Amino acid sequence: MIHKIMPNMSNSYVFVYLILLHSVLNLKGLAPWATRTRMAIVCQTKVTRNANMEKFRNGYLFPEIEKKKKAHMEKYPDAKVISLGVGDTTEPIPTIVTSAMAEHSLALSTPEGYKGYGDEQGNKSLRKAIADTIYGNMGIRENEVFISDGAQCDIARVQLMFGSNMTVAVQDPTFPAYVDSSIIMGQTGEVLEESGKYKGVEYMRCAPENLFFPDFSITPRTDIIFFCSPNNPTGQAASREQLQQLVDVAKRNGSIIVYDSAYASYISDDSPQSIYEIPGSKEVAIEISTFSKFAGFTGVRLGWTVVPDELLYSNGFPVLQDFDRIICTCFNGASSIAQAGGLACLSDEGHKAIRGVIDVYKENARILLDTFTSCGQEVYGGVNSPYLWVHFPGQKSWDIFSEILEKAHIITVPGCGFGPGGEGFIRVSSFNYKDCVLEACSRLRSFLG
Amino acid sequence: MIHKIMPNMSNSYVFVYLILLHSVLNLKGLAPWATRTRMAIVCQTKVTRNANMEKFRNGYLFPEIEKKKKAHMEKYPDAKVISLGVGDTTEPIPTIVTSAMAEHSLALSTPEGYKGYGDEQGNKSLRKAIADTIYGNMGIRENEVFISDGAQCDIARVQLMFGSNMTVAVQDPTFPAYVDSSIIMGQTGEVLEESGKYKGVEYMRCAPENLFFPDFSITPRTDIIFFCSPNNPTGQAASREQLQQLVDVAKRNGSIIVYDSAYASYISDDSPQSIYEIPGSKEVAIEISTFSKFAGFTGVRLGWTVVPDELLYSNGFPVLQDFDRIICTCFNGASSIAQAGGLACLSDEGHKAIRGVIDVYKENARILLDTFTSCGQEVYGGVNSPYLWVHFPGQKSWDIFSEILEKAHIITVPGCGFGPGGEGFIRVSSFNYKDCVLEACSRLRSFLG
Repeated sequence: MIHKIMPNMSNSYVFVYLILLHSVLNLKGLAPWATRTRMAIVCQTKVTRNANMEKFRNGYLFPEIEKKKKAHMEKYPDAKVISLGVGDTTEPIPTIVTSAMAEHSLALSTPEGYKGYGDEQGNKSLRKAIADTIYGNMGIRENEVFISDGAQCDIARVQLMFGSNMTVAVQDPTFPAYVDSSIIMGQTGEVLEESGKYKGVEYMRCAPENLFFPDFSITPRTDIIFFCSPNNPTGQAASREQLQQLVDVAKRNGSIIVYDSAYASYISDDSPQSIYEIPGSKEVAIEISTFSKFAGFTGVRLGWTVVPDELLYSNGFPVLQDFDRIICTCFNGASSIAQAGGLACLSDEGHKAIRGVIDVYKENARILLDTFTSCGQEVYGGVNSPYLWVHFPGQKSWDIFSEILEKAHIITVPGCGFGPGGEGFIRVSSFNYKDCVLEACSRLRSFLG
Repeated sequence: MIHKIMPNMSNSYVFVYLILLHSVLNLKGLAPWATRTRMAIVCQTKVTRNANMEKFRNGYLFPEIEKKKKAHMEKYPDAKVISLGVGDTTEPIPTIVTSAMAEHSLALSTPEGYKGYGDEQGNKSLRKAIADTIYGNMGIRENEVFISDGAQCDIARVQLMFGSNMTVAVQDPTFPAYVDSSIIMGQTGEVLEESGKYKGVEYMRCAPENLFFPDFSITPRTDIIFFCSPNNPTGQAASREQLQQLVDVAKRNGSIIVYDSAYASYISDDSPQSIYEIPGSKEVAIEISTFSKFAGFTGVRLGWTVVPDELLYSNGFPVLQDFDRIICTCFNGASSIAQAGGLACLSDEGHKAIRGVIDVYKENARILLDTFTSCGQEVYGGVNSPYLWVHFPGQKSWDIFSEILEKAHIITVPGCGFGPGGEGFIRVSSFNYKDCVLEACSRLRSFLG
């Protein structure tokens, strides 16, 4: 930029100029990154910053919230802040699972138990257990299951596989990693300042008036359709009919669905827990999932992605083979300890124990839902999902977020952080201890009442 | 391709044609992927395969070797195959480290010990321990240390950060992940069939005649210089003078060095164990490293990357901030259990214990080096590295690999797998049990004698 303005300046002059510019901008609060560069002559490289990274307008949502939380706690050091924000698990993991991980760890100190690299795609036993347990009668084979260190990591790896020349559609609102990874990959244009939307991304509005399901009759074809069900943040699980419609659209358009089922285990009604419950889906869908919210593995890091053999690019080449190449080149398998834990989760006894934990959060969600409902608040989700999606018509999400934090000392997530369609909403998470949720509900009743 | 040949064919005709074509190619052994597509009418999508993925000529090196090993074991079911191939650790991890991981696992079942998401950048205590222990007097601050799930993963994430408009240079030969990730990111052109080099990549020849150090006087400027020391596969650790030259070149050219120090802990002489031992390097270098070969964590998965505050793009923007964004968006932190293990490795007692394991492999390397030397073989490495680089002038690497496998039942790695400059060499790994190494040496003496 500077070089364009003053093409004849030598590099060192440019840099002195830049430093002065930083100082000025910084005083005006316009160049937050200037605070990180030292006010001394340092030598910048001649490497141009990735233009895709320049497109980001905001920081990543959750670290942003964390910053605001820290600032609030400095302002009110005695306040007992309750987090119903970041969807972070709080309940201890059942001992049947942690014992398996501890045993695996200790065995690494024995000649018989030591094992170095595993298969990049994951341990066969775990791949098979996922195919058998999670996808029992859906015809998923173990070679189609790739073990990961979490859904967010595999969203990035799937995007890396697809490359920059893809068009994408996302639910609006939805989990930010889809659009963010699209920006990084160069699949998008610049942000449109007015709407907050990125050029080149189809934002499929999902709101109460369309039962939180996209209107495909007005959605242009894209190569990729990201679809999260139960949706984060709206808490809506798509019905069988809706998912059949999604698969039909993908088939008609020759699109690939990237289906995120991270919260499938929270479904209580007969909504499908996997896209592969829908006939014909194996020819059009990848499914990304995780042990994070299923088994409290947010810190342990374990997930999986299914890429069916039947899924083919337009030239007939199997997508699975490119994903395998990405996994072998850019990943080296999930921690063997985490994988031992994952296997324990899928045993009969383990599965029963982690269901007990899910039920704790589901009970929290029920309590929160009752609270909002009894206060006459417009609220969605909380039945098939740990998240509630609360509407404050006419208000700005960040204002609601700030007001609830200021008055009730409760952290939520501003809906607009999930896309422009989230404006006017906040997401409330049920991931917390029951007594904290009860205390939060008491404060919310005062706040809303 | 088919569409280019027959632009007027309808999609379904094209696909029937494709299936027939697959059958024919498959019979001729020309389309290995055709065996994966079912010989039935399946519905391909209209999504175009990533052109970068199309550029790959070979499978990823190590899975390729694994396939050949399996085929050999089927041919000789009674042979005791010894692997000196993939650099995979074999010695148990000291109990001080695995106990820490087991304790951390078990604590996840208690309300006090349970912890969900950690910081995406890694636990503060581990970041600080790495800054203090590994980079003691080099001025690396804990905020510059990012914890990863391994070096290979962070090579990919660093590349994702840089984007496709980068020019890159690599040592030739070197670890394949640098070029492979360049291909995936679209930083390269097509492969030149004759040389096996990818267009747009500068291959900096590192051979006995230039003491395995690039001749920068004939190397065009690139944005990125990947530099691995001790080098995998040649086993050469660059000297202080050589690394000063590297840093000087990067400064002169405004390039960024991506320095891979995965094998630094194997250095016995006074070669630098980090690029940050070189004055001025913080303004031009990222360092990627790992616990894999340092602590036997190949299956546990833990590594780190240092991005100094002082490293700036041409517009003055700190590289660290873009890397932080990548970590927050495309990664969610390494397993908390692995991180607990990493912290134990860096305690005084832990560090002493893992040094003992490194010494086992270094003794193996010494035995292998003696064997090759006493047979009059031209051999490099093995002193500052677990790898030996053995020259068979005039022969093809894959031929040597096959001959050693066929006659001695020993797996090595063909040098050409590390770049065209590796042709005529094989890499021999010292990662195995001592008795296996002794047995391998006995067979090698027969083979070479």
